Amino acid sequence: MAKLAAGAATSPLLAAFNARRALTLDLAAQLSDADATVQSMPDASPAKWHLAHTTWFLETFVLRDHVAGYEPFDADFAYLFNSYYEAEGQRHARTARGMITRPSLDRVRDYRAHVDAAVQAALPALPADARALIELGCHHEAQHQELLLTDLLHLMSLNPTDPAVWPRVPRQTSDAAPLGWIEGCSGLAEIGHDGDEFAFDCEGPRHTVYLTPHALADRLVTNGEWQDFVDAGGYQDASLWLSDGWAWVQTNAIEAPLHWRSDWQQFGLDGCTRRDPAAPVTHISHYEANAYAHWTGYRLPTEAEWESAAAGIDPASGNQLDHAGPVRTLPSEGRSLSQMFGDVWQWTASAFLPHPGFRAAEGAVGEYNGKFMSGQMVLKGASCATPRGTSRATYRNFFPPSARWQFTGLRLARDL
Amino acid sequence: MAKLAAGAATSPLLAAFNARRALTLDLAAQLSDADATVQSMPDASPAKWHLAHTTWFLETFVLRDHVAGYEPFDADFAYLFNSYYEAEGQRHARTARGMITRPSLDRVRDYRAHVDAAVQAALPALPADARALIELGCHHEAQHQELLLTDLLHLMSLNPTDPAVWPRVPRQTSDAAPLGWIEGCSGLAEIGHDGDEFAFDCEGPRHTVYLTPHALADRLVTNGEWQDFVDAGGYQDASLWLSDGWAWVQTNAIEAPLHWRSDWQQFGLDGCTRRDPAAPVTHISHYEANAYAHWTGYRLPTEAEWESAAAGIDPASGNQLDHAGPVRTLPSEGRSLSQMFGDVWQWTASAFLPHPGFRAAEGAVGEYNGKFMSGQMVLKGASCATPRGTSRATYRNFFPPSARWQFTGLRLARDL
Amino acid sequence: MAKLAAGAATSPLLAAFNARRALTLDLAAQLSDADATVQSMPDASPAKWHLAHTTWFLETFVLRDHVAGYEPFDADFAYLFNSYYEAEGQRHARTARGMITRPSLDRVRDYRAHVDAAVQAALPALPADARALIELGCHHEAQHQELLLTDLLHLMSLNPTDPAVWPRVPRQTSDAAPLGWIEGCSGLAEIGHDGDEFAFDCEGPRHTVYLTPHALADRLVTNGEWQDFVDAGGYQDASLWLSDGWAWVQTNAIEAPLHWRSDWQQFGLDGCTRRDPAAPVTHISHYEANAYAHWTGYRLPTEAEWESAAAGIDPASGNQLDHAGPVRTLPSEGRSLSQMFGDVWQWTASAFLPHPGFRAAEGAVGEYNGKFMSGQMVLKGASCATPRGTSRATYRNFFPPSARWQFTGLRLARDL
Amino acid sequence: MAKLAAGAATSPLLAAFNARRALTLDLAAQLSDADATVQSMPDASPAKWHLAHTTWFLETFVLRDHVAGYEPFDADFAYLFNSYYEAEGQRHARTARGMITRPSLDRVRDYRAHVDAAVQAALPALPADARALIELGCHHEAQHQELLLTDLLHLMSLNPTDPAVWPRVPRQTSDAAPLGWIEGCSGLAEIGHDGDEFAFDCEGPRHTVYLTPHALADRLVTNGEWQDFVDAGGYQDASLWLSDGWAWVQTNAIEAPLHWRSDWQQFGLDGCTRRDPAAPVTHISHYEANAYAHWTGYRLPTEAEWESAAAGIDPASGNQLDHAGPVRTLPSEGRSLSQMFGDVWQWTASAFLPHPGFRAAEGAVGEYNGKFMSGQMVLKGASCATPRGTSRATYRNFFPPSARWQFTGLRLARDL
Repeated sequence: MAKLAAGAATSPLLAAFNARRALTLDLAAQLSDADATVQSMPDASPAKWHLAHTTWFLETFVLRDHVAGYEPFDADFAYLFNSYYEAEGQRHARTARGMITRPSLDRVRDYRAHVDAAVQAALPALPADARALIELGCHHEAQHQELLLTDLLHLMSLNPTDPAVWPRVPRQTSDAAPLGWIEGCSGLAEIGHDGDEFAFDCEGPRHTVYLTPHALADRLVTNGEWQDFVDAGGYQDASLWLSDGWAWVQTNAIEAPLHWRSDWQQFGLDGCTRRDPAAPVTHISHYEANAYAHWTGYRLPTEAEWESAAAGIDPASGNQLDHAGPVRTLPSEGRSLSQMFGDVWQWTASAFLPHPGFRAAEGAVGEYNGKFMSGQMVLKGASCATPRGTSRATYRNFFPPSARWQFTGLRLARDL
Repeated sequence: MAKLAAGAATSPLLAAFNARRALTLDLAAQLSDADATVQSMPDASPAKWHLAHTTWFLETFVLRDHVAGYEPFDADFAYLFNSYYEAEGQRHARTARGMITRPSLDRVRDYRAHVDAAVQAALPALPADARALIELGCHHEAQHQELLLTDLLHLMSLNPTDPAVWPRVPRQTSDAAPLGWIEGCSGLAEIGHDGDEFAFDCEGPRHTVYLTPHALADRLVTNGEWQDFVDAGGYQDASLWLSDGWAWVQTNAIEAPLHWRSDWQQFGLDGCTRRDPAAPVTHISHYEANAYAHWTGYRLPTEAEWESAAAGIDPASGNQLDHAGPVRTLPSEGRSLSQMFGDVWQWTASAFLPHPGFRAAEGAVGEYNGKFMSGQMVLKGASCATPRGTSRATYRNFFPPSARWQFTGLRLARDL
Repeated sequence: MAKLAAGAATSPLLAAFNARRALTLDLAAQLSDADATVQSMPDASPAKWHLAHTTWFLETFVLRDHVAGYEPFDADFAYLFNSYYEAEGQRHARTARGMITRPSLDRVRDYRAHVDAAVQAALPALPADARALIELGCHHEAQHQELLLTDLLHLMSLNPTDPAVWPRVPRQTSDAAPLGWIEGCSGLAEIGHDGDEFAFDCEGPRHTVYLTPHALADRLVTNGEWQDFVDAGGYQDASLWLSDGWAWVQTNAIEAPLHWRSDWQQFGLDGCTRRDPAAPVTHISHYEANAYAHWTGYRLPTEAEWESAAAGIDPASGNQLDHAGPVRTLPSEGRSLSQMFGDVWQWTASAFLPHPGFRAAEGAVGEYNGKFMSGQMVLKGASCATPRGTSRATYRNFFPPSARWQFTGLRLARDL
Repeated sequence: MAKLAAGAATSPLLAAFNARRALTLDLAAQLSDADATVQSMPDASPAKWHLAHTTWFLETFVLRDHVAGYEPFDADFAYLFNSYYEAEGQRHARTARGMITRPSLDRVRDYRAHVDAAVQAALPALPADARALIELGCHHEAQHQELLLTDLLHLMSLNPTDPAVWPRVPRQTSDAAPLGWIEGCSGLAEIGHDGDEFAFDCEGPRHTVYLTPHALADRLVTNGEWQDFVDAGGYQDASLWLSDGWAWVQTNAIEAPLHWRSDWQQFGLDGCTRRDPAAPVTHISHYEANAYAHWTGYRLPTEAEWESAAAGIDPASGNQLDHAGPVRTLPSEGRSLSQMFGDVWQWTASAFLPHPGFRAAEGAVGEYNGKFMSGQMVLKGASCATPRGTSRATYRNFFPPSARWQFTGLRLARDL
């Protein structure tokens, strides 16, 4: 972990800031300059870019806008490391992020240290709106920590030599419990964020929904169950699939989850390992989740059903990210509804659209979530790559229905 | 109009069948063999294909399955004119429909006559389930009548000589009324189809929703208002657009609705004419509708808001299709909420997803709507190309957010 | 055949003009408006376009430029039917030629009649340069006659119902003669066009080349020999192929000549027929010809070797096009070197590059051949679709190495 | 430079081997792991790949095939670093070379050291055919040295920060001499390789050609002359361009040579510098060279014209690569014909096709050049990035006509 100035961590915000920033460096600690530079596909970004972009976010919205006299570390970086904020001007093309061999990883680490020191120095005197931007920056960085890992996994999966980024950790396996059903609330319910705790703009406002009678499965779908779907010809039966999904299967010759290898092997950041039949299936698209649910005769839960059921469950429980390396820690606290947080994000049946009354914030920060409300599906929960403590029942993750390089799985639901 | 056997139209179903089939021929009456054969883009189909496919639907699901001894008109047609029914076997590639110069348009007309005669002869003795399939076939054909016109318009729009398919009809123009707002119901409401009247599967089941306080504009957005958006730089301001929409604008160099020409001209089936500032804007994508609403500070209505408001309005009113040619007929009956049906389909803020409790029917007919519930947005109402009498408040039209070759416009909504 | 004014055919040029123009109409006589309108791929053009473009060529370069007071038939046609003459201004996009359902085939026939009458009336008084343009127009039209047939064949081949454009003519088949070798001239030789007879610009100037000792096969490679290549795994053996050719084979899953069907069937303008093992193989790309030659241990002839050998052979002999329909007529006159003209164009080992001293003509007509001297290979001889009397030993046909919708085959050569 | 065992450099072959191998390391000495890993486009390869592939060539064809008991350094490398030798089995996809972040650059350097030591140890006892393969490997590596530099330049040119790989070296500039013409030999001439000196397979056999009267320009076309072409609208005048070239200009919005920047700046491995008007223009495609020649009224030389004129000129003269860094060294020795070697490769009017009598060698090594004889044009001479001593008058460089990331320019020719 980066060394901090003595006594610096005296405020909770500063402590959170320092921990969040340090975790990013830890996650990247095993990476070579080359590992951190290459972009494996247009949807993914290089690790170096994640390290720099999260820093640019703080430098721009906190230091430039709120700290008099702050000098940018490097005038080129605003162009190189803006992601998609149109209001912040021209920026490097997303698909060409992997061409930036210079600045080096070491220089990006210097950039981080420079900005960290400036934030640490300025923080005590900053007004509330600037402190809110630091908090936003920390949550923003948590999101990029997860992307850093999934983008890195995608890159390594394209290397025929199957490199392991992390040491292999023996996993305890046991048989999956039989699937049970937990009846959900029906009638009027409230979902969406409210109150003083941090949440992203798209999580609110809190609002009323009407739920029809339904039940949720008490655990996630497993690798073993997915293998049954494969064996039953699920990937060859058009009648199970959405029309777009079937076209996607055929165009891309899809026949198993991403990173599945033959002979019950799978590829991960710890290299090639044996798939655990009892572990949650992961790296599936929404199309696949939907087809699987169709095959079972059940369906995916709606966002409102899922969020309503998750209201009382500790979102910091389950298999989530604590530090660099794939170690499970806390038992899932869902009692009857297990695995609501951790392991994999759970595809829902809901499109990512605004909650009633949603208005995007003004200015560049307002581009955060609202402009992505098209063509994407909501995922709920948290994954093994989600930094513990950053998800919530109201959290709305979203990806296009074909995406599967994230840790994505599913939980079944049914009408009652 | 096709000549019918004397006394044939003695049952309401037979009369409806005959009228529906005759209208298709009327719509195609002005077309040459070439006009009816060419496919202008992968999303569109040739007119000849629409004529034949609607006939194949009846031949397959009614005659083949319910009339003993029926002989197919031509054994090749099942392959050529199946649209997307996977359960019905192999079929001609959608993108290659325009290569089928043979059979000719005349032979397809013979095919229609052959199948019509067989249905007319068989109808009196058919059981209820087969009669329901004829009714479904009529509604299916009504949908293809609208597509025939919009696909034809697209084809003609690519001809540099601006051919007019229909004679020009002088239109009465007047200033658009000032925009007013009509408060909608809030709290619990019921939407979705129920009862014995015909509806497509996706319109049900009827179910409860919870509406937040809101109002709908009392009329559609006009060409004049859209011109203001263009003049204000709406197509150049990234902050107004969804991220996918902005990419679409830039990739395709979009700067006005489809079929707009310079100098207040527009292209339609009656050739190039002057745009009426008071007429509803049409041929816009969901992306454009969303950006326009954002620009005004308002938003698009949700499907539930729209459907709840439309409950008491005659869906057969307004400017809809009565016969081949662009003549307005019935006054809009919406009193305070005008233009709820007719002129243009209205983009909503809702994705096309299943209503709670929706289950697709078994078999090939079950492929009707459910498998398209991905990546599309709902449109409500009816357009000038919708055969009058075939829409309903519960009707769910749907297209991808980039589509704009249909007659598509918008009505504003706002939170209260 | 089009009716001519009495006494009109008194000059050889007029007679040639009338015959050339009449043949085009005959070739298109069996076509429906739809057949003549659809474009099957970007490389091909609709039959209607060929009929109109050849007419535009005469209207523009003869009537507009040399006949005072001539009024264009239709002002739109210059835009619609210019092919690629940049100097003649804007033109309709090549890939969108198939969208032009109007003008109809009948109106294009009227266009032809109008221009023919104007040329016939003007011809006797035209100066030599204008008469030369008529002669050029006739040869230009002969080229389009062949393209009309090959483009039409491609279109029909995409129709799953295998429509026959022409009646089937029984063919006499016999065993192919054993392959013999004819030694060619070596040392200095002259090739290229010289003298007063018509030739296209790229055929000259006549010039000296140096030939190394070699021999040419005395006949074309047959379907039966090609089947041996298929059976020997020729399409699966990378070592036989040029690098670009192997990529083309794999990308397009090529495993036989175009229009070959299973069970010794082939598709042609007379529908599906049995392949004759003794007939020349056709519809192969340069890549395939090269791979086949490699497999045999021989090679393709160079253009100079072929042209030098063909010098004494009647270019109007062999199986060429006399009228609309696939009837063989004249025996090949090559004595020892048979099939030098007719049946199929013969791929050479030579790129289509300028002969030494070649200079393109000035003006739009100068765009004729020179600008295509890049990325194409020379073919020599004539095919069954070449209008008899229009080829020459110096004639230089050219296509990209992947093209195979023309009647293209090969003759082997070897070093001595 | 890599340290060599004492006394190792006692044979000329070993000395050449050691020097060739050392230069590669020198050229890559300034590169970071990331610089050496990224692939900037499908046509280019990462520097690390060049370092490894040249080593794989030696390991495979020399050590594996000729040294008993040799153990491969890493079993994965045969898959990763084969380029295109089909006979050597499966290999990593060319377009995915940039995904290989591991092995690292350091490990590839270890691979080089391992193989170098093995070759050095084995060389004294190797038979002649194995020694010939070492010589081939050295020439092969020289080719990759040039590609390493041009691929690296392309990568750096995509970095908006304009990184300089090499220190800037002041260049002496002077006005270009007026263009003069040197008459070439006409009539019979001999070109192509013969004799015992090393040459690549495609350079032979030596053969007779017939040359028409012509002259070559006595120097290369300069930046200043090219600027005149730009200023005269050369990139906007379709009549100057080959049809494929014009399409390429328009599709890619080409308006100047690659790496030209505004205000007389250019980008190179020494960063952004001022363009010298008297220096040879470089980074132009064959299309551009051809259009420029057309504009002047002259033409490109044929390969035979160029090679015949170069016969007496020292191919090791001129501005070629001696070590890592852009320093000019030897004066051009062409007397009247200057710059025949060095500065830039010179596009010719000749396609890359086999010399008469050419036969590819058997086995994997035989894939060297023959299979690329399609769709490419010949370049002659040498460039500033060509390792001095590796070119010859008979050398045949080749690239597709659109390529311009190499150091490519032109010399004019004309008919007499």
